[in-house]
Amino acid sequence: MHDLDADTGRVPLSVLGLGLMGQALAAAFLGRGHPTTVWNRTRAKAEPLAAQGAQLAWTVRDAVTAGPLVVICVSDYDTVRDILEPVSRDLSGRTLVNLTSGTSQEARETAQWVIHQGAVYLDGAIMAVPPAIGTANATVLYSGPTTAFDRHQQALSSLGSPVYVGADHGLPSLFDAAALSLVWSTLNGFLHGAALLGKAGIPATAFARLAKTGIETVADWVPGYAQQIDDGTYPATESTVNTNLTGMKHLLHESHAADINTELPELLATLAERAVAKGHGNNSYAAITEQLRHPSP
Amino acid sequence: MHDLDADTGRVPLSVLGLGLMGQALAAAFLGRGHPTTVWNRTRAKAEPLAAQGAQLAWTVRDAVTAGPLVVICVSDYDTVRDILEPVSRDLSGRTLVNLTSGTSQEARETAQWVIHQGAVYLDGAIMAVPPAIGTANATVLYSGPTTAFDRHQQALSSLGSPVYVGADHGLPSLFDAAALSLVWSTLNGFLHGAALLGKAGIPATAFARLAKTGIETVADWVPGYAQQIDDGTYPATESTVNTNLTGMKHLLHESHAADINTELPELLATLAERAVAKGHGNNSYAAITEQLRHPSP
Ligand SMILES: NC(=O)c1ccc[n+]([C@@H]2O[C@H](COP(=O)([O-])OP(=O)(O)OC[C@H]3O[C@@H](n4cnc5c(N)ncnc54)[C@H](OP(=O)(O)O)[C@@H]3O)[C@@H](O)[C@H]2O)c1
Ligand SMILES: NC(=O)c1ccc[n+]([C@@H]2O[C@H](COP(=O)([O-])OP(=O)(O)OC[C@H]3O[C@@H](n4cnc5c(N)ncnc54)[C@H](OP(=O)(O)O)[C@@H]3O)[C@@H](O)[C@H]2O)c1
Repeated sequence: MHDLDADTGRVPLSVLGLGLMGQALAAAFLGRGHPTTVWNRTRAKAEPLAAQGAQLAWTVRDAVTAGPLVVICVSDYDTVRDILEPVSRDLSGRTLVNLTSGTSQEARETAQWVIHQGAVYLDGAIMAVPPAIGTANATVLYSGPTTAFDRHQQALSSLGSPVYVGADHGLPSLFDAAALSLVWSTLNGFLHGAALLGKAGIPATAFARLAKTGIETVADWVPGYAQQIDDGTYPATESTVNTNLTGMKHLLHESHAADINTELPELLATLAERAVAKGHGNNSYAAITEQLRHPSP
Repeated sequence: MHDLDADTGRVPLSVLGLGLMGQALAAAFLGRGHPTTVWNRTRAKAEPLAAQGAQLAWTVRDAVTAGPLVVICVSDYDTVRDILEPVSRDLSGRTLVNLTSGTSQEARETAQWVIHQGAVYLDGAIMAVPPAIGTANATVLYSGPTTAFDRHQQALSSLGSPVYVGADHGLPSLFDAAALSLVWSTLNGFLHGAALLGKAGIPATAFARLAKTGIETVADWVPGYAQQIDDGTYPATESTVNTNLTGMKHLLHESHAADINTELPELLATLAERAVAKGHGNNSYAAITEQLRHPSP
């Protein structure tokens, strides 16, 4: 069943779920010449893909049995189970790649269920927006048996840059959560700064260049701070927690004076104060990670 | 008094305060050939600069009267006043550039006092660490009379890239606070992610590459989001607040499951939920800035 398609030399596969992301995935597989069968609850979303050469499956069973590789990407893990449970026997012997976003616990539970059906399971997390799918900018994280990843790596590389993160099926969701915590925090820092400057009549576009520079500076610090965290020592190469805390108090003062929300600066200062209280005042900012390893006090 | 030095063709100037930053500033002026007089409370810190050609002033008065341009960079604004009040009459006719970090209120109050002494005042904020001073990577923001900035721009460009942000003396501190809110938020997002992955035995260095990619992705979104904020409309080009909120709940779940601090994800989700409640669920993430413009509920 793992044979390649005689005409194209590619693995025949199917894509279940044709939302914004599923449509991009199917289009990327088609673009790389994979015989691609598609299914979606709302059939209308499949039609543009038919024009690009996709086979339209009338039923989930037709889609699942179309090839050795089944890719699913729907709203959430409950929906994955709702769709696949009626055809669970047909999964046997195939590889299911689930690119739906969820928690590591959901991924591990789904893995157990899929393996129990006699199928091979790869869980994935897409770290990209649909328009980036099919380009090297789209990082997709995978976990599960290395043999399955190796066998299908070529097909999966149609979607972007595949990165294998380990056998534990929970890892892509965990990496996804960690990376997104960074993305949202960065955005909130920008939005807070924009709100502060906005109160002084400065447009956000006048802040954008400085903000971009600030973000890129931090990007340059990340490898060094990561090394400090792994070493468990935090020499202050850029600046100390004490110095930063002084600045945070300025930010808090400015935010109060501008009568804007102060929850973000309060959290920043609280975490830094806790690090100082633990003796990290003269250490680098990376020392704050130790305060985050324990439940909130 | 604004004459250039006969030998060097450069403005003679003085640097008061030779902490980590003051030393870097004095060295950069010397490196560009400015006749530079230095003063520090603790005199020992001045000696290495003497070896680089600096004049050592025994008193604050000697330093202030050495040239038309006086640069000060000490711990805080109170210290600036403590140092300069005894020599206030000597400031008259000179330009004082204060690169000490503080709040916009402190900067405006200091401006009033300096102008009252018959001096010209430029307030500045250094957006760089000492090793970057003297390179194009060091952005320094300035405010005050444009004439004074123009007159001394060449000298000030010895320190890095000077950026004039307006006549209002409070603006550099405000931009500084806004940019730092972004820097600290980004770092906290990284440190939270590292704590989460660390609990699963994944070293921070294994997260660094993905983290850097995440940060750089956000840097690319900033100009577009800034435009949305200024326009007051938030079309969801990358993803909606609703989609992000679902992911935040995953992050919260993972953080609880890993038994780590949850204050950061709680704040992220709270702000996003407020935006959804205000009808921004299908807008882009930038819509959250509207929740930040008002005092915390
Ligand atoms: N869009 C992004 O930027 C992005 C980025 C990374 C990861 N992801 C993840 O990718 C997954 C899909 O996202 P998306 O953007 O494609 O979302 P979407 O446009 O909302 O599409 C949701 C898909 O799930 C299907 N679905 C929902 N409930 C269903 C049910 N009860 N039975 C059968 N099918 C059902 C929908 O079918 P109908 O068409 O019939 O409604 C549709 O195919 C999500 O887990 C998301 O977090 C998205
Ligand atoms: N370092 C950075 O990365 C950085 C980045 C941007 C902005 N800044 C800002 O630059 C300013 C200076 O920072 P720094 O890194 O140079 O700090 P620092 O190394 O701690 O130096 C503090 C300076 O202030 C002087 N000082 C403190 N109290 C004094 C007093 N009562 N009377 C006279 N002098 C006094 C110190 O003199 P002594 O030597 O006699 O103690 C020293 O020259 C701060 O506002 C800081 O926020 C620093």
